[in-house]
Formats: sequence, structure tokens, C-alpha cells
Amino acid sequence: MLVQQLLKSKPDQVVVTVKPGTSLAKAAEILALKRIGAVIVSPDGSHVAGILSERDIVRELGKRGVGCMSDKVDDVMTAKIVGCAASDTVDQVMQAMTAGRFRHMPVMEDEVMIGLISIGDVVKAQISEIAMEKQALEHMIMGH
Amino acid sequence: MLVQQLLKSKPDQVVVTVKPGTSLAKAAEILALKRIGAVIVSPDGSHVAGILSERDIVRELGKRGVGCMSDKVDDVMTAKIVGCAASDTVDQVMQAMTAGRFRHMPVMEDEVMIGLISIGDVVKAQISEIAMEKQALEHMIMGH
Repeated sequence: MLVQQLLKSKPDQVVVTVKPGTSLAKAAEILALKRIGAVIVSPDGSHVAGILSERDIVRELGKRGVGCMSDKVDDVMTAKIVGCAASDTVDQVMQAMTAGRFRHMPVMEDEVMIGLISIGDVVKAQISEIAMEKQALEHMIMGH
Repeated sequence: MLVQQLLKSKPDQVVVTVKPGTSLAKAAEILALKRIGAVIVSPDGSHVAGILSERDIVRELGKRGVGCMSDKVDDVMTAKIVGCAASDTVDQVMQAMTAGRFRHMPVMEDEVMIGLISIGDVVKAQISEIAMEKQALEHMIMGH
């Protein structure tokens, strides 16, 4: 299965972004309001400066205490982002996520973000794909 | 696959607990230090009063601001815990996690916690199990 197909299966998804310079407090508010686990940090909604996750916020809080909440997302986000292309396979994405221990990956096209996929999306797709392959094999055996 | 087998595959795991009355700030410190996503709230390390996750902390922060960090974990944790038994199947656990939208489940035996499994553990187990079944079917077909 390709990333492209996975994106098509969630057409209503709008990627939530915040601008560089946003405070951690404001970012936490947005995560809570939108009920999501991470926001993309982007100056214009399409170029990716970084990703800030729930985990990033809690780790910073745990290390430095509540004072960190007035910091800018820029200082806490993951800035070295690994993205994928719509033509990549879901398998490739899962391997990259597992190896890099991250849960979200922007889908890029000519340095512009066209979507965001999460480890949950990838896992659901992979389980349903393997299950379908298994079913096809079972049918082959039954057919004999 | 049974929960029992899944637990055996991670024998070194120690379930991290905090006592009721612990502050959110202290809990965030422990999550960061131990590099985990949730702690069990327990008066004695074996009876489960609730679970507090990274998500719970960020949602509370987002709604109420940094003042919440001096609150007790008791007021923010999920207290209505769905547990499983070592004899449950991993499939059952995954369905319960998906339906209830939670990521961690304590494994209980006579109201005493004997382990903790995460959605990540469950997904890994399920993918490897389906892949093995598929391989077995392929061998059957090749054998014909």
C-alpha cells in the first residue's frame, strides 16, 4: 500500500499547524482543543519547520518545570523532520517511524506538506493489508 | 496469542507507579526520567487506583494552564481502569483499547497488577502473528 492511498482514506483531515514563536502553553491549548497528539510548526501552513508532540511538552516540563511553558515551540520541537513522499510505501514509513522512534510524519511534495500520517494510521493500514493477503491465501487453499 | 505470552516477551519490564497524592509536576518528572508515556497510580505498587498519561497532563495544561501542575494525580488520572487477565487474547485487548481509546492496560490477577501492556506491545505482537500465519499459508501452497 502507498502513502497516497492511506491519505485518501482520511480525506477530511486538516493538518493543524502553529507558527514559529508560538508558546508551549498555547501549543498545549491547541493540542487539547483539537484532541490531537502533535502539531506541525510552520510559518505558512505548508513549509515544515518542525513537529511538537505531547511527549515533547511533558519531557520538557519534567526536566525544567512549569517555567518552560512560556518558551517558544521552536526551542522544544523536533526540527530535524523525516518526511515521506506520497509514492512511498506504508511499509517504508513504518520502518522509518520505528527506527527513528517518532509517531508522526509529514507527507511532502516539492518541500510543501500535503498531509500528515501517524503511527496509528500506518498500523491500521498494515494490519488490514496483511489480513487481506492472508484471506487471499486462505481462499487459494480452499479453492484447491 | 495470549497476554501471558506477550508479558513473557518483555520480562525485564518494571511497571512504574506513583502514590495517590503525587503532584502532576512530579509525575511529569517521572515520565521524563523513565522515558515512558504513562504511570500507574497505586497506593502499594500492586492495587491500581488509576493511570496517568502524557495525554492527560497536556489536556489539563491546555484547558487550565500551568496552575494545574500542582494538582494531585488523583484529580486528573483515568480512574475507571479497564484491565485484562493473563489468559485473555491479545486480540481481545486490542479491541478493548481501540474501542475505549486508551493506550495502556494493566494485567490483573485477583485485583493485583502483574504487568502492564501498551498499544505498541499489542500491535507488534499482532503484526508478527499475522505475518507468521501468512508465512505458514504460503508454505502450504508451495508444498502443493
